[in-house]
Amino acid sequence: MTDQSSNQMWGGRFAAGPDAIMEAINASIGFDQRMAAQDIAGSRAHAAMLAATGVITDSDAQAIREGLLTVLSEIKNGTFQFSTALEDIHMNVEARLKEVIGEPAGRLHTGRSRNDQVATDFKLWVRDQLDAAETGLLALIRALLAQAEAGADWVMPGFTHLQTAQPVTWGHHMMAYVEMFGRDLSRVRDARARMNESPLGAAALAGTSFPIDRHMTAEALGFDRPAANSLDAVSDRDFALEFLSTASICAVHLSRFAEELVIWSSAQFRFVTLSDRFSTGSSIMPQKKNPDAAELIRAKVGRIYGANTALMMVMKGLPLAYSKDMQEDKEQVFDAADNWMLALAAMEGMVKDMTANRDSLAAAAGSGFSTATDLADWLVRVLGLPFRDAHHVTGSLVAMAESKDCELPDLTLEDMQSVHADIIDDVYSVLTVENSVNSRQSYGGTAPDQVRAQIKRWKALV
Amino acid sequence: MTDQSSNQMWGGRFAAGPDAIMEAINASIGFDQRMAAQDIAGSRAHAAMLAATGVITDSDAQAIREGLLTVLSEIKNGTFQFSTALEDIHMNVEARLKEVIGEPAGRLHTGRSRNDQVATDFKLWVRDQLDAAETGLLALIRALLAQAEAGADWVMPGFTHLQTAQPVTWGHHMMAYVEMFGRDLSRVRDARARMNESPLGAAALAGTSFPIDRHMTAEALGFDRPAANSLDAVSDRDFALEFLSTASICAVHLSRFAEELVIWSSAQFRFVTLSDRFSTGSSIMPQKKNPDAAELIRAKVGRIYGANTALMMVMKGLPLAYSKDMQEDKEQVFDAADNWMLALAAMEGMVKDMTANRDSLAAAAGSGFSTATDLADWLVRVLGLPFRDAHHVTGSLVAMAESKDCELPDLTLEDMQSVHADIIDDVYSVLTVENSVNSRQSYGGTAPDQVRAQIKRWKALV
Amino acid sequence: MTDQSSNQMWGGRFAAGPDAIMEAINASIGFDQRMAAQDIAGSRAHAAMLAATGVITDSDAQAIREGLLTVLSEIKNGTFQFSTALEDIHMNVEARLKEVIGEPAGRLHTGRSRNDQVATDFKLWVRDQLDAAETGLLALIRALLAQAEAGADWVMPGFTHLQTAQPVTWGHHMMAYVEMFGRDLSRVRDARARMNESPLGAAALAGTSFPIDRHMTAEALGFDRPAANSLDAVSDRDFALEFLSTASICAVHLSRFAEELVIWSSAQFRFVTLSDRFSTGSSIMPQKKNPDAAELIRAKVGRIYGANTALMMVMKGLPLAYSKDMQEDKEQVFDAADNWMLALAAMEGMVKDMTANRDSLAAAAGSGFSTATDLADWLVRVLGLPFRDAHHVTGSLVAMAESKDCELPDLTLEDMQSVHADIIDDVYSVLTVENSVNSRQSYGGTAPDQVRAQIKRWKALV
Amino acid sequence: MTDQSSNQMWGGRFAAGPDAIMEAINASIGFDQRMAAQDIAGSRAHAAMLAATGVITDSDAQAIREGLLTVLSEIKNGTFQFSTALEDIHMNVEARLKEVIGEPAGRLHTGRSRNDQVATDFKLWVRDQLDAAETGLLALIRALLAQAEAGADWVMPGFTHLQTAQPVTWGHHMMAYVEMFGRDLSRVRDARARMNESPLGAAALAGTSFPIDRHMTAEALGFDRPAANSLDAVSDRDFALEFLSTASICAVHLSRFAEELVIWSSAQFRFVTLSDRFSTGSSIMPQKKNPDAAELIRAKVGRIYGANTALMMVMKGLPLAYSKDMQEDKEQVFDAADNWMLALAAMEGMVKDMTANRDSLAAAAGSGFSTATDLADWLVRVLGLPFRDAHHVTGSLVAMAESKDCELPDLTLEDMQSVHADIIDDVYSVLTVENSVNSRQSYGGTAPDQVRAQIKRWKALV
Repeated sequence: MTDQSSNQMWGGRFAAGPDAIMEAINASIGFDQRMAAQDIAGSRAHAAMLAATGVITDSDAQAIREGLLTVLSEIKNGTFQFSTALEDIHMNVEARLKEVIGEPAGRLHTGRSRNDQVATDFKLWVRDQLDAAETGLLALIRALLAQAEAGADWVMPGFTHLQTAQPVTWGHHMMAYVEMFGRDLSRVRDARARMNESPLGAAALAGTSFPIDRHMTAEALGFDRPAANSLDAVSDRDFALEFLSTASICAVHLSRFAEELVIWSSAQFRFVTLSDRFSTGSSIMPQKKNPDAAELIRAKVGRIYGANTALMMVMKGLPLAYSKDMQEDKEQVFDAADNWMLALAAMEGMVKDMTANRDSLAAAAGSGFSTATDLADWLVRVLGLPFRDAHHVTGSLVAMAESKDCELPDLTLEDMQSVHADIIDDVYSVLTVENSVNSRQSYGGTAPDQVRAQIKRWKALV
Repeated sequence: MTDQSSNQMWGGRFAAGPDAIMEAINASIGFDQRMAAQDIAGSRAHAAMLAATGVITDSDAQAIREGLLTVLSEIKNGTFQFSTALEDIHMNVEARLKEVIGEPAGRLHTGRSRNDQVATDFKLWVRDQLDAAETGLLALIRALLAQAEAGADWVMPGFTHLQTAQPVTWGHHMMAYVEMFGRDLSRVRDARARMNESPLGAAALAGTSFPIDRHMTAEALGFDRPAANSLDAVSDRDFALEFLSTASICAVHLSRFAEELVIWSSAQFRFVTLSDRFSTGSSIMPQKKNPDAAELIRAKVGRIYGANTALMMVMKGLPLAYSKDMQEDKEQVFDAADNWMLALAAMEGMVKDMTANRDSLAAAAGSGFSTATDLADWLVRVLGLPFRDAHHVTGSLVAMAESKDCELPDLTLEDMQSVHADIIDDVYSVLTVENSVNSRQSYGGTAPDQVRAQIKRWKALV
Repeated sequence: MTDQSSNQMWGGRFAAGPDAIMEAINASIGFDQRMAAQDIAGSRAHAAMLAATGVITDSDAQAIREGLLTVLSEIKNGTFQFSTALEDIHMNVEARLKEVIGEPAGRLHTGRSRNDQVATDFKLWVRDQLDAAETGLLALIRALLAQAEAGADWVMPGFTHLQTAQPVTWGHHMMAYVEMFGRDLSRVRDARARMNESPLGAAALAGTSFPIDRHMTAEALGFDRPAANSLDAVSDRDFALEFLSTASICAVHLSRFAEELVIWSSAQFRFVTLSDRFSTGSSIMPQKKNPDAAELIRAKVGRIYGANTALMMVMKGLPLAYSKDMQEDKEQVFDAADNWMLALAAMEGMVKDMTANRDSLAAAAGSGFSTATDLADWLVRVLGLPFRDAHHVTGSLVAMAESKDCELPDLTLEDMQSVHADIIDDVYSVLTVENSVNSRQSYGGTAPDQVRAQIKRWKALV
Repeated sequence: MTDQSSNQMWGGRFAAGPDAIMEAINASIGFDQRMAAQDIAGSRAHAAMLAATGVITDSDAQAIREGLLTVLSEIKNGTFQFSTALEDIHMNVEARLKEVIGEPAGRLHTGRSRNDQVATDFKLWVRDQLDAAETGLLALIRALLAQAEAGADWVMPGFTHLQTAQPVTWGHHMMAYVEMFGRDLSRVRDARARMNESPLGAAALAGTSFPIDRHMTAEALGFDRPAANSLDAVSDRDFALEFLSTASICAVHLSRFAEELVIWSSAQFRFVTLSDRFSTGSSIMPQKKNPDAAELIRAKVGRIYGANTALMMVMKGLPLAYSKDMQEDKEQVFDAADNWMLALAAMEGMVKDMTANRDSLAAAAGSGFSTATDLADWLVRVLGLPFRDAHHVTGSLVAMAESKDCELPDLTLEDMQSVHADIIDDVYSVLTVENSVNSRQSYGGTAPDQVRAQIKRWKALV
């Protein structure tokens, strides 16, 4: 999170005079250079508009727009010399533009200020990341759908409290995450729609007396409309906060799945085998396949939410309009975005590569009296017992099985009837794991048919 | 945040045996009784559906539905005896229902479990709070619109870095907050739409073998549809996290306005006078009108975001499906919701009651060379200087005014021409505060016309 | 976290006028009554000092001190009527004192203000909680020492990445938590020593012109000294922040142990059996013993750290001296303290009651080539191989065992020598789990002797 | 927070195969190279100990120790080629050591593992930062003492709720921050003492069978003792959490002072003038001296506490011993440490350079009936009124002054006696600002004598 050069300076910071300290705390070019492409796109749109509204000449605008492309190519191919003395990306680009095209460069900064410029750049950058998140989420959802489709009817234990509760299907479990990441996708899209208003032309804070056309620049930059209040436009960092909130909730989902993968790949569970590519081995123990990628993904929720916390605290209680505190916004969002995208890509890769161990899953699914609920439901449905009474009968039968060290289907009909005389042979039909999951036909239930219906619905959506 | 009885117990906790400790950490009835109305609504819908699908008889359903109304009225009028031994609101209600109607009560809990029941109750409660937040935001926006309308053309200093930057209008400043709270409103509505899926019928985690109709209960409870995956339905707390995220961003806006009110009501600023109702006096100093409500609102962002942090950490890394950790969700959301609604109402009240001190605002607006930007723009527009050159000329003129201890309009034309020979008398037209704000006609700018246009747009919306 | 009465009011909040809203946001008596005993202790010390310094008469002081005891007993036996109109605990107590003793009550509030009074009360309350935390930590450490002593030589797998790494002993694992909670204890003691300075007599913010003796009240209240700057004394909430930080780090330790207990009590691990008292059963599945207490303890880290976040945000950027924002401090600390103490007590109870399943632990310890490191170390020590070469040889032997589907001790000497010719029979001495753990004799290692030495050291300390 | 190269990769991440994704998420060399000096110091101590205990030969140890110095010098002068394929700093150093000295390099990694190695490196790094924080805090305290000494008797308004409360002295206000930063210093020292135990020799998690001497390496690296439990030693990140907590509380103090500086340097307050070096100007408005450094310092509390939040979430619920999640610890601590040190240095610089505007401070101190409390105290002390009655009389007199548009000392004796007949001429002695502050002689009060006594005490300490 800190570049080498600043470390070195601070290693010897006690020799540094106040000027060096001020430069170190004040300059942003070390990180805001990541917004170079957005900055240049914004300036090109602004120049075209200034010409269209007669504020500058067409030839000046043409010179500016072409000069900016030159600067952009220099940045892209790494020949651009960034200067800390010029503080930020805006001044770096403008200063270089002046070298490239001369006097017309001085006319670019008409009817705008750095306050609306940085808000525009940063919004464009965040918008790109929302698009990247959408792409990453769609890829992950597709990977989960493929796993779900392959194992729509593979049985496994469903847990509550990490204790076996009822059998479910592998496909059903995968589809639970499709729902979660699907909601994330929906949040990403809402956030993008809400933030897509252009700050450009808000100027320092009050708007401008030049006859600019904010709708024109908004359109050129793909915004839906200009922001409607210039004070708000330069003070607003909601789009960054909402980005971080959205990323944080998604990171919670990623952490939950990562936790399951860590537990499932332990020697005691052996529910899944992760690919070598997303594990690390040990130089001593070849059997040891550490689920490093899953652990790191699990940890990312901390990093992303930490960024959220940081920016919330920065924005707390800031009076309008721009305050320098807000310069602390970008590094948090950059870091969170990088790690979110990385976590999505790593999770997609792990999901694609992982192998479910069907035998282990099935064996675990059938143990622990996992069909006790099915038995209780049968007593209600067939014998007409109230559910609370059915619970009691089931409890006695489970206790009997436990004392005989067997599972429920291993009890004889006589055993059963000794607890409740009306039980008939039909009861065995609900005690197998396969019948259990097949019976869960309620909408959204774990029955393979239900799971396949949801897979079909999602495949049409993504 | 802690009720008296538990305090008392923990005051003597070292005498408490393990059973008392377990009861204290495990029982939720102390707080989840707030969801009594939602719990009963959910059970009534469930009972009606069980009858419609033939799982229970119509007469049982009728008894259950009427009995539940009896229980609800007992809770509402305070005669209901809550029992910690019964752990939670669900068991308290069901146990009392059994006392009221007898045997049919045992048939209610068919085809559902506490896991989907609590998810349903909690969602209904959160949905109510989103509706309350919408109402509160609308009221606050209307109060701001009234302030903006009254002072659409009152001038005041616009600040950056809490230093005078350019003159703006009071209406413009109020409308900046309308934009912020308007985005909050949009987030509230998106969150409500996204969360409006019914968990009911997901049962423990796998769905059920009873032929229930989840669409019917969803519709009866005002949900748009049933949740599509039963594992997800009982594990999901996204709606709570998104509620807290949305509340947190709104609380940042409230904290920013509150900070401004605290600063503005200081003796040094005197920009606003808060009403006695939202201030506290001092028994010694009658002039001292402490802005307590504003300070408390400013602090609420901590409380609300603290709840957000708490729930994020609780949910991090939880395997599917239900884990008991999730019982920690409700108190955080309850507390955040209460404080959010309270802060919205208090801010609305303060805004309605506060008086802008027009003279102080105007005097501050005209000081500090606040129209220097207007001068620079004039040089560009009328004399055709590049903006960067115009900056330089303006800087010299401001330095001259500073050395003469006067403001810019007090310089003579000769003074001006000594810096740039082409300056003509027309320049004075842009140096008054009124002309400055009137000239900011760019879309969303501070000109009264622009402000009134935005007020009109918003009044049509809210 | 919210009492019923305020809920009810806010349920109908839109009818509430501004006065009701202000009262709701402003009054603190709903929660600060928990500091009644501290408030009265502070006032009694203050009255005694005022008499000793001649500011009030001895008889007035006597009346005040006795009257305060009367008020305290009324509060303790529940007959005291708290009034929201009197805002806070200080005014409630003083008003009642006036009713009890009449005119002398008016002389109590000399040379102090509510600002130093509330700081004193709150510090005393927090100090009590630090003492309670010390007691709770000591009890938990003792419970862990008992487990460690019983199983100092029981073998179990040591994990990294939740994958079997090397065998360790049960006692060693328990002692790891003793170290963690021991550091917590040390932090608690440091925090207590640092905060133990008396704010009393700082008055509103500037000190007082009365000839008070702050050392006398400090001593009477068990403080080490008076706080040395009156502005700081009323503005400082470091003690609350440090309390919450200390609690948060301890809560991380609790969450880690809780996570292990949840995993260890799963059907797949079966490392421990939790007592019925700290588990909940299921009405259907008697084998299902949900580790509810562990899950709830795991979640408490969120709640406690959420309180930390809340107070950090509240305090951020507050100018000196007292601001009303600081009224938000107490509920966070109260809630965190209650839950910390509860979590410590519940964890102590669980540790005391839990049973390690020695057979399961031992079986798991011996699987997964867990002594591969011992083999590599033997190659270094006995054959003189560089460690990196020894790794390579070991890797080949593990691969051979894996292909033969056996563990390392099951390989014949010929097998071994086929990989490295110099291997001799002595190698088998390091391949058993017992020899492995016995060999880890480095200071702090897992060898039972080392573990017992640490137990002995700790027993002398606690 | 993210280096350019990873950005570029992720810009084209969808083309990246799983291997590239895994490398990106897994490698730590991009940041842990900052611990190179610590890593090499640890290895040199380890090698010396291995020779002393006979595990390796003296000549091997000598070769290793000298080779490591060569590697260190390569890193320091920038000629070292870091390799991502070698993952981390430990492997990079060891691989290069092998190139430099050949075969003996393979004997270095005996009796340790990367788990204890990274814990040792990181602890040494954090310890250095605690020392740097101590230095920074001492420098800041000295700068505050100089300000306090210069203005021990300069009067200024003391605020509560940002409303004038009572006069205080500039020196007193500065000394309030000395107390705060003094507590920070104390926390830094406690944290350093607590964390100063050596993990080295804990090996992977269980200790080692080699006859290593952990006390010897502990001493060589300046640790007070070896950590007493090997499982804990490799799992513990308390030292990082406590570092971040300590930094966070200090950052709150910095944010409070920064807020005051921003408010004080506004045109409305004009209490201080910041130096040009710690402000930024505007190219238009020469009078505009933006307090950028103060604003950025105010924001740093968000960044530092965000890091705290991140690591708390990472550590929550991690089972023992090492999990890969813990690799997320370093970047958070690096970033927080850099920003903490920077904020301390910038604040020190600002404090040294800033000028208090004595006239503005004095004028503000005398307005707003700021001596009303002195009047009330006089009524108690001289006339013997109970304080609550004295309040009432004072209130009437303030109201009278307010109606006459004058301050309290401007009231005639007749005016006064019309409210309370016993008032005598002596009352005027307490109504001036100077007398007010001089009278606050209680320990820690604002009287210049008291302030000077505290300055003297602190100068002896730092």
